[in-house]
Amino acid sequence: MPSKSVIVPHNIMFQVFESILIRNGFSADASKQLADVFTENSVDGIYSHGVNRFSTFINHKKSGFITPDVLPILKSQFNGIEQWDGQLGAGIINATFATSRCMELAESFGIGCVTLSNTNHWMRGGTYGWQAAKKGFVFIGWTNTIANMPAWGALDAKLGNNPIVFALPFKEEAIVLDMAVSQFSYGAMEMKLLQQEELSVFGGFDESGSLTKDPAAIMQSKRTLPVGYWKGAGLSLLLDILAAILGGGKSTHEISKLPAEYGLSQVFITIDLKKLHHFQSIQSIIDGIIKDYLQSVPFNENAAISYPGERVLQNRQRNLEFGIPVQESVWERILQH
Amino acid sequence: MPSKSVIVPHNIMFQVFESILIRNGFSADASKQLADVFTENSVDGIYSHGVNRFSTFINHKKSGFITPDVLPILKSQFNGIEQWDGQLGAGIINATFATSRCMELAESFGIGCVTLSNTNHWMRGGTYGWQAAKKGFVFIGWTNTIANMPAWGALDAKLGNNPIVFALPFKEEAIVLDMAVSQFSYGAMEMKLLQQEELSVFGGFDESGSLTKDPAAIMQSKRTLPVGYWKGAGLSLLLDILAAILGGGKSTHEISKLPAEYGLSQVFITIDLKKLHHFQSIQSIIDGIIKDYLQSVPFNENAAISYPGERVLQNRQRNLEFGIPVQESVWERILQH
Repeated sequence: MPSKSVIVPHNIMFQVFESILIRNGFSADASKQLADVFTENSVDGIYSHGVNRFSTFINHKKSGFITPDVLPILKSQFNGIEQWDGQLGAGIINATFATSRCMELAESFGIGCVTLSNTNHWMRGGTYGWQAAKKGFVFIGWTNTIANMPAWGALDAKLGNNPIVFALPFKEEAIVLDMAVSQFSYGAMEMKLLQQEELSVFGGFDESGSLTKDPAAIMQSKRTLPVGYWKGAGLSLLLDILAAILGGGKSTHEISKLPAEYGLSQVFITIDLKKLHHFQSIQSIIDGIIKDYLQSVPFNENAAISYPGERVLQNRQRNLEFGIPVQESVWERILQH
Repeated sequence: MPSKSVIVPHNIMFQVFESILIRNGFSADASKQLADVFTENSVDGIYSHGVNRFSTFINHKKSGFITPDVLPILKSQFNGIEQWDGQLGAGIINATFATSRCMELAESFGIGCVTLSNTNHWMRGGTYGWQAAKKGFVFIGWTNTIANMPAWGALDAKLGNNPIVFALPFKEEAIVLDMAVSQFSYGAMEMKLLQQEELSVFGGFDESGSLTKDPAAIMQSKRTLPVGYWKGAGLSLLLDILAAILGGGKSTHEISKLPAEYGLSQVFITIDLKKLHHFQSIQSIIDGIIKDYLQSVPFNENAAISYPGERVLQNRQRNLEFGIPVQESVWERILQH
């Protein structure tokens, strides 16, 4: 039976997060920024990288994997591309900084690229997609991770599931695809575990090598299925190499030798749509595509056709109005920090 | 039983292609360039977008979908980003032009982006990844296509399988991931059909809605499986929107109203690695990652762990030495043009 859940209003969640962060050595500004994003991710229904991950974040700070109150340092720049050292600061703060700086580069050069070395888990990659898209930019970004997925044809996990984000402005909001290149992110599997549910499709292999929908068995074996089998495995390898060489930072195999997942490499690319001559017609092009897409004939009466980011808006509206559902055990653990 | 195959030496294949192209209205230069790439794709073992596709290309030219001997025209530029109109020229020539121009932009701005509207099928996306990577650039590029894949949860094909390419230099060669966002490209399914083989995993749904490994049934229903189910479907939608808005060109739903697949939109992004301060150490970073990756423990004795592009090198060596295996029916059809 799934554990009981409590309903936490978003302003209460924010205050709880903020006070714990301050108590754990983050400045007032940093605490506000972090509490904002952790709350926002939860409001948006991405609990796995919001409220469910908050305790791990605090534990990483306590273990010294996250350095409070540092900002990235510029290592190298050449017109539209810049490399920054994240100094092991909080991933959310570093990635927000990188996104913002990348947009400045795109304003100057049409397209910009910012990379981070020595940064930390950015929690929900979509956060930065939304940040950029809501300001009128196209966003492409990805991170590497600890090894948690095997090469195609392999038993042991040499690859990360390296989430990648594509985002673009749509009406007053955005279309945001935020996907790990494993069939399920570890966060998504944790959610299913908390809810004591099976995965909807095979998510990986158990220790005996059989395909399984049991999230616990996959989290144990670390043998997640890549999206599209050999394709997702290849994509993971390329994203890790690109993060490491563009960031001048650690790759998955180096991160995996550390005592925990920290010191990541990330890539941020933005394009300033205002710099395109047909800027005024872009939203009507998108409208036309989405309108056609939503006219798809559903597979059956239960199938809901939605575009990436659409459900986030529904979650946001509901959770802002009625509060955020949180597993009781998760909330109790947070309150103990 | 699979149809018989003939072995065609690469120089003979090139000459046959070149003479057919000239006979069909392409200039000597264009014919040479096109014959080169069609032959190279075949030498590299990507038959589906080389020799197997040549007749379709000539038929598209005969039908007036491809305009010979035009070059892209600049529509708009702002520092690192440029939009070009492909004038319905041959996709290979336009994409080679765009890749080359994109590298010039990256040399000036660190990162460059070139988009094409009104272009045609680029055949093998990997071609452009190899072109850029062998000159020391990171390459990210994608194309939209005609609708040939359903939205997740849908019956009808509203999405394209929009191939995306990631490439980077490795030793004297490259690491190149070239993937349609459907589990199998239509070219790959055609190959299996020619060889009268089943797909290795489920590739889509048949007309009755059952998952199937039969390439003919999927090509008939156009209900291919996206890589990673909902993830690949979402990725397809984002890639199409980005191609259409960055290119200022047609989106999948507009292309699908035309009498054939032409007038595509494409995006090319390159990064000049020489502009990074740690350029000298990049190859050793990649070496370290690939070395670790290739130490993966194989699933069983038949499992071969390789990186994207590695098998291409093996095919190239074998086909240059021993000739290119071509289905007899494919070769006979070509000789009739």
